[in-house]
Amino acid sequence: MEPTLAHSVRLDDDGVRILDRRRFPFERVWVRCATAADVAKAIADMVTQSSGPYFAALQAMVLSARAAARLPDPRAAMAADAALIVAARPTNDHLAKAVAFVMDAFDPDDVVGSAERGAALGDAAYRSRSRALGEHTAALLPDGARVLTHCWADLYLTETVAAAQRAGRTLSFVCTETRPYLQGARLTAETLAEMGVDTTLITDGMGAAVLADGAVDTLVTAADRVAMDGSVVNKVGTLGLAVAAHAFGVPYLAMVQSPDRTAATGADVPIEHRDGDDVLHTLGHRTASTRVRGRYPAFDVTPPRFVTTVVTDRGPFAPDALDRYWEGSQ
Amino acid sequence: MEPTLAHSVRLDDDGVRILDRRRFPFERVWVRCATAADVAKAIADMVTQSSGPYFAALQAMVLSARAAARLPDPRAAMAADAALIVAARPTNDHLAKAVAFVMDAFDPDDVVGSAERGAALGDAAYRSRSRALGEHTAALLPDGARVLTHCWADLYLTETVAAAQRAGRTLSFVCTETRPYLQGARLTAETLAEMGVDTTLITDGMGAAVLADGAVDTLVTAADRVAMDGSVVNKVGTLGLAVAAHAFGVPYLAMVQSPDRTAATGADVPIEHRDGDDVLHTLGHRTASTRVRGRYPAFDVTPPRFVTTVVTDRGPFAPDALDRYWEGSQ
Repeated sequence: MEPTLAHSVRLDDDGVRILDRRRFPFERVWVRCATAADVAKAIADMVTQSSGPYFAALQAMVLSARAAARLPDPRAAMAADAALIVAARPTNDHLAKAVAFVMDAFDPDDVVGSAERGAALGDAAYRSRSRALGEHTAALLPDGARVLTHCWADLYLTETVAAAQRAGRTLSFVCTETRPYLQGARLTAETLAEMGVDTTLITDGMGAAVLADGAVDTLVTAADRVAMDGSVVNKVGTLGLAVAAHAFGVPYLAMVQSPDRTAATGADVPIEHRDGDDVLHTLGHRTASTRVRGRYPAFDVTPPRFVTTVVTDRGPFAPDALDRYWEGSQ
Repeated sequence: MEPTLAHSVRLDDDGVRILDRRRFPFERVWVRCATAADVAKAIADMVTQSSGPYFAALQAMVLSARAAARLPDPRAAMAADAALIVAARPTNDHLAKAVAFVMDAFDPDDVVGSAERGAALGDAAYRSRSRALGEHTAALLPDGARVLTHCWADLYLTETVAAAQRAGRTLSFVCTETRPYLQGARLTAETLAEMGVDTTLITDGMGAAVLADGAVDTLVTAADRVAMDGSVVNKVGTLGLAVAAHAFGVPYLAMVQSPDRTAATGADVPIEHRDGDDVLHTLGHRTASTRVRGRYPAFDVTPPRFVTTVVTDRGPFAPDALDRYWEGSQ
């Protein structure tokens, strides 16, 4: 069975439906978006995250094409929606890649059809690259490997597990709950269970203890972006785990389809700050003193000295050798 | 005004009342304990924590004396209760120190009166030593210092803040929420607000990001125990913060009244493991997938290479010079 979250965006006749990851797995609620702007808002509101926004952006552009097809300049209208979508979340560049698939396919004589083809191409490319990434990551994890992961690495993680399972290797996981949204406690834990993987949940503060006491063999996370200097930008909390892994001799593998040629260093990636009130609440309940304010940097930047290997869809690279990713290609 | 939590254990005619820190500050509920065994259970159940169990243990021993005074061998009965209390939580040695104050004062001709005097002596000694510790810690924090803290350091923290305030210096704090019980979000945040201190709350995964980006000047935590090799045993999460502080050049001050002469290294301190289900819940609500198990090591051990200074009631010491704590005493 494929994991539930592997297919959490649906295009229907009347809009896009997105599985609400803020409530999964406790409730399985689909949020309907009638327009591309609705999808942009849903992404900004964290209805979906990790790989989810990429798939939502692809289908949002099909909605955009449907509306634009009736206008005098459909390309301009779609470009405006594309900009809205890309602006929804600044740190990951998935959104820009998704809308580019649809815009690159644009055909003025078949606005909707070309958008559908672009979206299908983008969907297939992402799944295929994630599968290759998962194969390369699984190849680095021996049978019985105990893996610490953080947040929810989505298809990168499920493809890694699936590749290991195809190779007859068993992995076990320790996952962090990943406050404030608890993606680890909800999405990672539930999905690993769906895949039959032995999983233990810890709080975000326990990672260093687990790394220090030999309870895990490898730290593996996705990366929202990897800069050309090997800096890894990922969900806040990754940095602390990477530093602790380095201190206690545990390798850290960061998974990304490809490094980001447009970002020379980690400082070139914009870090999204979300509403500090999110830190004061847990799944809708106030869990902090009413007399304090919160602060929520959504991502952190792990310097390359704490990164062992960047695993891509073209295989593993040392963090100081990412330019080799393009060797042999134009 | 003194902070609410500075006086959260009360001895009455019919028992000991303990402010329930599992619910503070949302509710101010006092749990009544009729016997020393009730107090031991309340401590094990986390009704109170940090310095709270020390004060609860002192008064539990007065309850024990009241019951024992009617028995043929009151000292033996009290010793049995003392053992019960000490066993309630294994990692911190406060409990053993508290019951020792009362047992050392034991007078067979005045069982209850001597217990009351022992408890009063223990209370005064703890407050006085915490005040000295706070003075020494505050002396290391310049005016305007931005301090990162973890969990709830109780009197060590409030005495540090009070000492800084007496010296006319302003401190600001970033505190971690400290899952699973959220002592930072509830106890630290509320109490610092009571004391008029500017405070920002972050999740446990954000500490490294705050340490890396220059948002804080010092990491300050309490220690449940400090071994003679300078290893700091404290609430799980401390290790990750200390490692990150070290990586990014931020000093880490660990506060303890005195090092533990009976523990040569961190490995000599028993680490309490609590119910893994606590990780799956937040203030009584299930917040993790129902298909995962939790793991809850309640403390971690920070090796001395990550500790800058151990601050005691006799002043600051380098972690490799803790034997000097007893210089000049017998």
